[in-house]
Amino acid sequence: MERIDQQFEFLREIDKEKFIGRQTYLTDGKRKENDAEHAWHMAIMTILLGEYANEEIDVLKTVTMLLIHDIVEIDAGDTYAYDEEGKKTQREREEKAAERIFGLLPKDQCRKMRSLWEEFEACETKEAKFARTMDNLQPVMLNDATDGKAWEEHDVWLQQILNRNRNTADGSQTLWEYSLNRFIRPNVEKGRIKDSEKRKDSI
Amino acid sequence: MERIDQQFEFLREIDKEKFIGRQTYLTDGKRKENDAEHAWHMAIMTILLGEYANEEIDVLKTVTMLLIHDIVEIDAGDTYAYDEEGKKTQREREEKAAERIFGLLPKDQCRKMRSLWEEFEACETKEAKFARTMDNLQPVMLNDATDGKAWEEHDVWLQQILNRNRNTADGSQTLWEYSLNRFIRPNVEKGRIKDSEKRKDSI
Repeated sequence: MERIDQQFEFLREIDKEKFIGRQTYLTDGKRKENDAEHAWHMAIMTILLGEYANEEIDVLKTVTMLLIHDIVEIDAGDTYAYDEEGKKTQREREEKAAERIFGLLPKDQCRKMRSLWEEFEACETKEAKFARTMDNLQPVMLNDATDGKAWEEHDVWLQQILNRNRNTADGSQTLWEYSLNRFIRPNVEKGRIKDSEKRKDSI
Repeated sequence: MERIDQQFEFLREIDKEKFIGRQTYLTDGKRKENDAEHAWHMAIMTILLGEYANEEIDVLKTVTMLLIHDIVEIDAGDTYAYDEEGKKTQREREEKAAERIFGLLPKDQCRKMRSLWEEFEACETKEAKFARTMDNLQPVMLNDATDGKAWEEHDVWLQQILNRNRNTADGSQTLWEYSLNRFIRPNVEKGRIKDSEKRKDSI
């Protein structure tokens, strides 16, 4: 198989990412978004919000990481942020998927894409940290825009959101504070996110 | 309004791109894709196929151009490649949309994004030419993957496709030849794309 055929084989295969559903509602509050839409949104966010990164980032590298980081879900499926059972087997399922799907590419590009995915997962470099910030921030922004619909449906507690976002500030302190003050706190106030502290107070 | 609020205003607004439908079927042949999915797909294509550009391109610039080039369709709607009536008012509708939507951004980013969109439209720089190659190639790849379903539904003629693709080779001669030989010609052979020359021969 020629190099260009391998590349198109991969490009056809990843079309399937458009069928992988997420738990976040789009701004109309009716349809939930899919992985491809999510990745597109985060890529533009990175280009426009990269200026708030704690350390200056390589924008193309971060964008590429975000565009491809969910491709493994074509085989492994989306694991919801608060699905503790699913998370136990997530890593293994995703490793296998990375092997197969990135393996469709010519060797040099397979190595490059796979290593970007590994870098995102390890969350140690400044680009991976900022990508993680985007991955946490984008659904929070949409959940706020839909009056907390997904949070209410899943009975999400503030503590779960804070735990999920424990690394958000590592990529951008500014964006984490914005997310906390403009998106998360107002939804706690309105009772769309449950708060155990509040409950204790009211008992 | 603060800079960061303006940026999030824009980022929430462009969520609507996920509702703008196109005429191309996804690889399952059932659902048609939307603008956000299309842009995501082309961004990855640019990263992987950029090596075939006639002249070396700035990949981040080309990716950014592709990620944002359909945002005007939030107001102006998608104009199908072969809708000659719609095309007459397309430019005016899209100019107005660009004014409003990019206008949500802080001035510097508004100027930058709007000028990238103008550059894509003018199709004169090497990045714009390659972006146009992607914009023409991606639906052809998907139409081939779905056995020409969209071509058959719209009774598309080879001459229309060649006309639509008159600039595809300007971005990449290699990719245009690949598209012609691997995607377009086989579908003419199978009668999924109508060919006036063939018809004349058979009369």
